[in-house]
Amino acid sequence: MIHSKITKLFGIKYPIVQGGMVWVSGYKLAASVSNAGGLGLIGSGSMYPDVLRTHIQKCKKATDKPFGVNIPMLYPNIEEIIQIIIEEKVPIVFTSAGNPALYTARLKKHNITVVHVVSSVKFALKAQAAGVDAVVAEGFEAGGHNGREESTTFTLIPMVKEQLNIPLIAAGGIATGRGMLAAMVLGADGVQVGSRFAASKESSAHIDFKRRVVETSEGDTILTLKEIAPVRMIKNEFYGEIEAHNASGKSVEELKELLGKRRLKKGMFEGDLKDGMLEIGQVAGLIHSIETARDIVDAIVAEYLEVKKEL
Amino acid sequence: MIHSKITKLFGIKYPIVQGGMVWVSGYKLAASVSNAGGLGLIGSGSMYPDVLRTHIQKCKKATDKPFGVNIPMLYPNIEEIIQIIIEEKVPIVFTSAGNPALYTARLKKHNITVVHVVSSVKFALKAQAAGVDAVVAEGFEAGGHNGREESTTFTLIPMVKEQLNIPLIAAGGIATGRGMLAAMVLGADGVQVGSRFAASKESSAHIDFKRRVVETSEGDTILTLKEIAPVRMIKNEFYGEIEAHNASGKSVEELKELLGKRRLKKGMFEGDLKDGMLEIGQVAGLIHSIETARDIVDAIVAEYLEVKKEL
Repeated sequence: MIHSKITKLFGIKYPIVQGGMVWVSGYKLAASVSNAGGLGLIGSGSMYPDVLRTHIQKCKKATDKPFGVNIPMLYPNIEEIIQIIIEEKVPIVFTSAGNPALYTARLKKHNITVVHVVSSVKFALKAQAAGVDAVVAEGFEAGGHNGREESTTFTLIPMVKEQLNIPLIAAGGIATGRGMLAAMVLGADGVQVGSRFAASKESSAHIDFKRRVVETSEGDTILTLKEIAPVRMIKNEFYGEIEAHNASGKSVEELKELLGKRRLKKGMFEGDLKDGMLEIGQVAGLIHSIETARDIVDAIVAEYLEVKKEL
Repeated sequence: MIHSKITKLFGIKYPIVQGGMVWVSGYKLAASVSNAGGLGLIGSGSMYPDVLRTHIQKCKKATDKPFGVNIPMLYPNIEEIIQIIIEEKVPIVFTSAGNPALYTARLKKHNITVVHVVSSVKFALKAQAAGVDAVVAEGFEAGGHNGREESTTFTLIPMVKEQLNIPLIAAGGIATGRGMLAAMVLGADGVQVGSRFAASKESSAHIDFKRRVVETSEGDTILTLKEIAPVRMIKNEFYGEIEAHNASGKSVEELKELLGKRRLKKGMFEGDLKDGMLEIGQVAGLIHSIETARDIVDAIVAEYLEVKKEL
């Protein structure tokens, strides 16, 4: 057990949250992380409402520990998703990519713990004012959707910490026990780990995507699509097309056409490493094998305790 | 005293290097940092050879502790600068922005300790192969010139550490004792601090620039000029002109014209906060006052020891 404001808030053993990622985190991953003592999150962003309900029900059967659902608020069906979460009595919700004032009060009325994901000090304070129970501050190095401020984990965490009064979870670039300890030294009460769980055995991602993550080295990802919304992805052939588009001076409309609607599913779920979009964080360069969620949690905790002791 | 491979390599008390910055770090700053137990560096990038010689001579009179000179290798007069450094028996040289194979052997023949600044694992290993004594790995959040890989301190340090055998200094985003401890937890043997010393009393920067750094908040800097060479600066009126240029689809040649030759001096040395270029790191948001170099070193060391003890 590692005590912190985050373990207390969620009623968990270790202050390790598994990021709720599209095409990656279904009930299998979430329940495995929760069973291992962390907090597993179902990523609702890639699920139709009915699919989400099934995942929640299966998750409740697969673990008696706390778990949560991540809701990117820019997706459609948000109203329906909120309703399902309330009906199914999901204990914890992480909201992202939207205004935390919209659903926080309603969720909390149903005794749901609400956490909001931000990329800046300004939005951290807005989330706090909206009444959330904790904030995830996510740095520039994180995979997938990202903030326009481009503040890195190393600078964002202490700056948020200086002004925030509620518990703070660090995200972006964290995949190891050393990373967890460094984030806590910088002021975090817990960490959210995405990329390493995306490459775990229980992740719903395609095996070829997981192998690609393991092969990824320093410098192989990039924050791109800033004309639409910044996303960090692996520099594959599809990224080459984005680059060519940008060099050609074509319109944002044409970029949206190039992007299309199924790129993420294609890359991460179907394993099309060339034409698909491969979202992952910079920290992929530190991920060297595909492990079970329990082994990942255990390894992070063991390294955290060992390095702390050495100090 | 804090023992590490870096204090041993340089013969200093604390593993804190003051970054050698243009228009900021003359002999006054370098000698003050060295006298306080860190390693002060004279930034030669903004000095004519004769001016550099004078600064070295004055630095030797102002401190009996080790100090060094930073040489950005893309500047002209490099041959002359190397000659002066050898003649004046400067004990330590930090090279950056160029090929470490060019001068390392020659400098080391004169018993000079050589350190090279990199922004990627690849260049860290190249520097090691070139025979340098240590490497500075600098993350995306750092001020001024920066790498194209955009790897952040949080991910770059452990990735370099995995493969490097020689001592490693972390740079980018570090201004506090917590930052120093976090960097060491991630694998660094010491830290290089730039921005906080740029805003110190002994810094040669204009007082208005220092005040602007103190006022800077999270999200106020940006890595720009990527069409020429990436530079992190404050988003002031001049940056607005760069943005307008980029939106207009004008050529890189015209961007170079807009940039001109004196922007940095104008902003940092002459204090023109509107039309000058204001290089500083993201960590400026954590800098809240203009202090002496000794107070900065003392505060970093005190916080480092206190947080370490609390763990």
